[in-house]
Amino acid sequence: MKLNQKCEERKVLRDPIHGYIHIEYQLLWELLQTREFQRLRRIHQLGGNYYVYHTAEHSRFAHSLGVYEIVNRMVHEVEDMRNGLSEREKIIAMSAALLHDLGHGPFSHFYESLTKKRHEEVSVDVILDPHSQIHQVLTSYELDLPLEIVAILRHQHPVFVLNQIISSQLDADRMDYLLRDAYETGTSYGTFDLERILRTLRVCDHRLCIKESGIHSVEDYIMARYHMYWQVYLHPDAKAFELLISKFYQRYAQIKHTLPASSLTLLDAPYDLNSFMKLDECRLFSLFQDGLESEDPYLRDIASRILERRLFDWIEDPSARQVETIRSEIEKRGLPLDLYYHEEFSHSSMYLPYREKDEEEAIGVLSASGRVEKLSEKSEIVKALMKMETHTRRRVYFVKKKARFDTF
Amino acid sequence: MKLNQKCEERKVLRDPIHGYIHIEYQLLWELLQTREFQRLRRIHQLGGNYYVYHTAEHSRFAHSLGVYEIVNRMVHEVEDMRNGLSEREKIIAMSAALLHDLGHGPFSHFYESLTKKRHEEVSVDVILDPHSQIHQVLTSYELDLPLEIVAILRHQHPVFVLNQIISSQLDADRMDYLLRDAYETGTSYGTFDLERILRTLRVCDHRLCIKESGIHSVEDYIMARYHMYWQVYLHPDAKAFELLISKFYQRYAQIKHTLPASSLTLLDAPYDLNSFMKLDECRLFSLFQDGLESEDPYLRDIASRILERRLFDWIEDPSARQVETIRSEIEKRGLPLDLYYHEEFSHSSMYLPYREKDEEEAIGVLSASGRVEKLSEKSEIVKALMKMETHTRRRVYFVKKKARFDTF
Amino acid sequence: MKLNQKCEERKVLRDPIHGYIHIEYQLLWELLQTREFQRLRRIHQLGGNYYVYHTAEHSRFAHSLGVYEIVNRMVHEVEDMRNGLSEREKIIAMSAALLHDLGHGPFSHFYESLTKKRHEEVSVDVILDPHSQIHQVLTSYELDLPLEIVAILRHQHPVFVLNQIISSQLDADRMDYLLRDAYETGTSYGTFDLERILRTLRVCDHRLCIKESGIHSVEDYIMARYHMYWQVYLHPDAKAFELLISKFYQRYAQIKHTLPASSLTLLDAPYDLNSFMKLDECRLFSLFQDGLESEDPYLRDIASRILERRLFDWIEDPSARQVETIRSEIEKRGLPLDLYYHEEFSHSSMYLPYREKDEEEAIGVLSASGRVEKLSEKSEIVKALMKMETHTRRRVYFVKKKARFDTF
Amino acid sequence: MKLNQKCEERKVLRDPIHGYIHIEYQLLWELLQTREFQRLRRIHQLGGNYYVYHTAEHSRFAHSLGVYEIVNRMVHEVEDMRNGLSEREKIIAMSAALLHDLGHGPFSHFYESLTKKRHEEVSVDVILDPHSQIHQVLTSYELDLPLEIVAILRHQHPVFVLNQIISSQLDADRMDYLLRDAYETGTSYGTFDLERILRTLRVCDHRLCIKESGIHSVEDYIMARYHMYWQVYLHPDAKAFELLISKFYQRYAQIKHTLPASSLTLLDAPYDLNSFMKLDECRLFSLFQDGLESEDPYLRDIASRILERRLFDWIEDPSARQVETIRSEIEKRGLPLDLYYHEEFSHSSMYLPYREKDEEEAIGVLSASGRVEKLSEKSEIVKALMKMETHTRRRVYFVKKKARFDTF
Repeated sequence: MKLNQKCEERKVLRDPIHGYIHIEYQLLWELLQTREFQRLRRIHQLGGNYYVYHTAEHSRFAHSLGVYEIVNRMVHEVEDMRNGLSEREKIIAMSAALLHDLGHGPFSHFYESLTKKRHEEVSVDVILDPHSQIHQVLTSYELDLPLEIVAILRHQHPVFVLNQIISSQLDADRMDYLLRDAYETGTSYGTFDLERILRTLRVCDHRLCIKESGIHSVEDYIMARYHMYWQVYLHPDAKAFELLISKFYQRYAQIKHTLPASSLTLLDAPYDLNSFMKLDECRLFSLFQDGLESEDPYLRDIASRILERRLFDWIEDPSARQVETIRSEIEKRGLPLDLYYHEEFSHSSMYLPYREKDEEEAIGVLSASGRVEKLSEKSEIVKALMKMETHTRRRVYFVKKKARFDTF
Repeated sequence: MKLNQKCEERKVLRDPIHGYIHIEYQLLWELLQTREFQRLRRIHQLGGNYYVYHTAEHSRFAHSLGVYEIVNRMVHEVEDMRNGLSEREKIIAMSAALLHDLGHGPFSHFYESLTKKRHEEVSVDVILDPHSQIHQVLTSYELDLPLEIVAILRHQHPVFVLNQIISSQLDADRMDYLLRDAYETGTSYGTFDLERILRTLRVCDHRLCIKESGIHSVEDYIMARYHMYWQVYLHPDAKAFELLISKFYQRYAQIKHTLPASSLTLLDAPYDLNSFMKLDECRLFSLFQDGLESEDPYLRDIASRILERRLFDWIEDPSARQVETIRSEIEKRGLPLDLYYHEEFSHSSMYLPYREKDEEEAIGVLSASGRVEKLSEKSEIVKALMKMETHTRRRVYFVKKKARFDTF
Repeated sequence: MKLNQKCEERKVLRDPIHGYIHIEYQLLWELLQTREFQRLRRIHQLGGNYYVYHTAEHSRFAHSLGVYEIVNRMVHEVEDMRNGLSEREKIIAMSAALLHDLGHGPFSHFYESLTKKRHEEVSVDVILDPHSQIHQVLTSYELDLPLEIVAILRHQHPVFVLNQIISSQLDADRMDYLLRDAYETGTSYGTFDLERILRTLRVCDHRLCIKESGIHSVEDYIMARYHMYWQVYLHPDAKAFELLISKFYQRYAQIKHTLPASSLTLLDAPYDLNSFMKLDECRLFSLFQDGLESEDPYLRDIASRILERRLFDWIEDPSARQVETIRSEIEKRGLPLDLYYHEEFSHSSMYLPYREKDEEEAIGVLSASGRVEKLSEKSEIVKALMKMETHTRRRVYFVKKKARFDTF
Repeated sequence: MKLNQKCEERKVLRDPIHGYIHIEYQLLWELLQTREFQRLRRIHQLGGNYYVYHTAEHSRFAHSLGVYEIVNRMVHEVEDMRNGLSEREKIIAMSAALLHDLGHGPFSHFYESLTKKRHEEVSVDVILDPHSQIHQVLTSYELDLPLEIVAILRHQHPVFVLNQIISSQLDADRMDYLLRDAYETGTSYGTFDLERILRTLRVCDHRLCIKESGIHSVEDYIMARYHMYWQVYLHPDAKAFELLISKFYQRYAQIKHTLPASSLTLLDAPYDLNSFMKLDECRLFSLFQDGLESEDPYLRDIASRILERRLFDWIEDPSARQVETIRSEIEKRGLPLDLYYHEEFSHSSMYLPYREKDEEEAIGVLSASGRVEKLSEKSEIVKALMKMETHTRRRVYFVKKKARFDTF
């Protein structure tokens, strides 16, 4: 099939964030119908966050379509790209947008720690795997299509701006997720003026930059990220929920030699395409339900905490004395500390909404005179943000007092 | 515990439809934390509709909270209820609102046909089952609480208005689902002026009615239902998706005597509380994945169609010749008609957005003079709607031509 | 200048209804800068309705831009027009859209009764008047441009679809005003799915029609009109406000021979372009303020009622006895009935949201087979609406009891 | 009348920002019906900004109602006020909210420079003037009501929190105008989470403060101010428009001794209540129209620039050479520099979105431990903002090249 083959009729999908998602090319429509892409319907966009923001039930499927649509608009509406990119490059960029999140496992964080592999690399694996439907669709158009899309995902495509629209501080990924996550959680924090950013987006020296008149919308977008981080993405209760999932797996790993062969063994599978395809969030919930019938009381207990939303409690920067009290109470109840107590450090520097380590990372601002400067040189507010003090916080999670329906 | 025991701190959950969900009573908070209620997170509000409207990924959990919040507002903001109901009655009404959808199985339609039981009856079963956490929470407050809530769900509560706020043509259920489904699908059809309806709601002769000045908002709300029915709820592709699920089960039932014992046997379970709790939409998707490894080619094929969204095609009111052509082509491909062909009739009379079979069903309108009349007597537009012609349509679903990734 | 001369830089105006208004052609930008078009900023879109819906403060200026933008989208996004119209026809259509409301006087209804001339005719006068800046701008591009635009406003342009996008049951005028008036009043009634209507709009046999798949959005749009009529446009209090303005003029006409020459004489001006340009809503309010200083007590009293929003009361379909009581009370207070009492009939048939007197008026529906049928033949709901009973109502307005700050 | 006299029926006004404005007390309803309050309908909330953002046509009338509604919610929903304030104090606070903007003249900036008086002082004048309807309504309830409201407007009320809800960095004024101006201009910048701010608002030591959990919403609200300042309020074109008005007056003052007595003399009126009431934005536009008929060519020219929106051009921080070129070109055209050239300095320090000069000015944050700290001590982002560098900019405005319809 020819790469630029159009669908018989343009596909139009209703979407509350973008109005409609428009799909014109046959290739993109076929990618959508693959098993690997459809699987993203069973991966929540915000992992366990829907245990905190109950309406955050949207999937990476919807998000991936949204990123695609923003790239679709970028390459067709931003003049520098409309004229500067070939049709082939545009189609490849749109494909990369659609496929960039393919490698997310169930409750991404948990899954990455299980497999010791970042989701970006898994995306690449799936695209390159000759058994994946994605790979088969791509190669039925052009044999080296998988490699070219992988180049973008690895930020190594020679047409540099293609890398940037998929991953940079002005990428379509962030633009969609901020708007979508704000919409779905019902917070107002993530909103910013996408129209204006698209209208002021330019390509200078092969890099994305923004016209000076768009600075305010970019400032607003950076603040949106800041607020979404602290209000939604890093919510301690969402972490408490994902912690329970880790503890479930930790317990399973401790006792699996004593268990009869069961569906739980899926958790041991070597992470090939086949088991990756099976281990979605739906499967995990079935495993938790199976865990309720385990002979191990701790596995049962943790499973029930997950299924009944009885999260661990947490405190921040506790005193030595507080920690001691908490730990000794858990021990008094005869509960293993490694399962019912957890601590972690978080460094707020990791969540700065904007960085400028080097030229490449900075958002460029195109002035009327044609010069490109770093955003921090043009925006007082961004300059101020970059000087923001950061902190390291220790957070301690622990099992609550015994309540009704608790085994312990 | 006392029924009117308040939470230590009022719980406030962000919700895009209502701004916030406010939970004040301890009972309600505890009902929320039960396994049976949390299970609703794994039942999509619109069943398989998210295969058509990709963002319709919201669950009955979120909807149930929304219905609760509307009832919370009704009993506290509508003067006739604020003054006319006791605190106990208010709490019971809010509980019934929260629990009214408890009995929905995975892909409700499919599940009801599997179990031959309506979801309302299953809700009652769960509430009355002494092993359910819901039952245990309720009886820890008052022994006859389950029965009283069941009375409301059965429309038999002596305080008649309680039945009506949960189920009638002006009930909180429809108000939430129209607004929520419209928001989540991104259509504008379902919106109506909830604020104004609540402001003009009255109780006359123990029944809900609306002040004359609220007629326009009620007309708008009825039209919203009409549009959501035809644009969203009855979308033929959504039915095509649920049809595939039925076919999967149908094939399983045909061949299960030949299958080795497997997790698929869950589909045979007698429908007790335990298997009901397990058979959520997550579990179904695991079963479809397991189906991919079946030795039966049809089971495999149908499973792959579900997982890769390759839906059946359909036409409406086909000619005898069209039907013949379709059927003979399927037979030529050697495919069993009972699996790859389906027809059904739909009667548009079933989906009228408003009915007035009898006094009780009608929405009452309270005129300035104090008289209550049927809505159809006061609203020309509703009167016109009731005279709308209805049709019976025959729709034929059938497997598409063989495409890549199709076994057949 | 050449008709298709583009602006140096495309103009982009923020607009809450359409996101942005995009102006590409120099002609349109120049029309915007004329005195006659800028005057529309001083004519409220909804006349005196902002005395009822206090936020309905938007002007015909904003609305005219909105109609322009919808036509801009129609001629460029609807394929049948993008391909079927010449660039010249598109520019002419957009100009007609911008200018269609030029002839509205202050509080349109009042002004039309004063001048005995419909606003459409005044629009034509202004466009044809060689002294108007509008005329001068148009003729500086092409000498017969005024006539061609007038042809559209008179529904006589040979390219029939141009007439229809400006005035028909699917015109850009209604689409903008429903959305804008709903937004500005804060009611939800006027919303409908503009995107979908634009996507399903077609031109068949030189007429606008809608693809069958767009029927639901058209039904929704028709209902939006119905609701806006009854909830907003025909609100009795808004009529009561405009009635006061008529009474002010009526009194002025009765006594002007006794008045010293004053700015009030503007109300006598023959309605030439010059006085038309002066008599905007701002001027009227200055005249009311001047009226406060009149020696005539009734003129003073009516002016103060306008400026302090002390509207007349009203009842519908009063009994003969009610009318008698009202009238005799006014007489007892020594007030002239012709100023302080008013009655009028309204026929709801005039406000049917949809009509199909003849083929031409009907909205056509294009079926998959290529046939065009009347909307009423395809939509049960529209068919039902057309059978809606209509009523004639008599409404009586009268001065309220004397209150503080009332002269009488 | 008793101060706490309720309206016969609670008044409910639709409002797109707040859903509804609820008016319960008779006093407030009567204040609304006064000539001085109704006059605010003829003062645009954003002055001449609607010449830039064409939909910013909303008035101070709508805004004043909005501020009232927020105070209404504050005193009834924020527990510390609901319980801590008497009914009388609540009514006085709501009255002050409604009346706080009474003293705004037409195009506020222009009018303040004309009268050398700040609008706050004029508000006080109107309230204390025994001839104003406002004063008469207030004293018909309690003789010292005017003084008590004035105390709040002067920030001198002994119940300190009353001063703060009307004017402070967390006042109802800013909350309404940010939301309303964003809504009406169609920008997304001004939005913030009003619900959450209201939920976390507290009164500590007689001052407004915010619970620690509300910090993020306050940060967002501060950023909203920052963006609205730079994107909307300080837009150079809006200043260019108000500059034309100043130039109109400047010219009038230069030549008035040569003019025949005319309505323009209103501009000389001593600023007593009577002339204040007449000089609204409507009147100004009538004066501009009259100016078109002046014998003075400059007055005519400036009037036509206002009425046809032909604004001056501007550049920022021009070089000496640029300035020289601009000035000499104006002189070459024979135009007086004092009318056709203008420069001004703006100090960005004046528009910092947040300040903490002293304890009193700071927003207090109430931590879980009960301590109140300054916002800058708890919010890294606010601390960073306070260190933002500020600049002084020189902006030069000047007449554009002669265009069609220009006299010169």
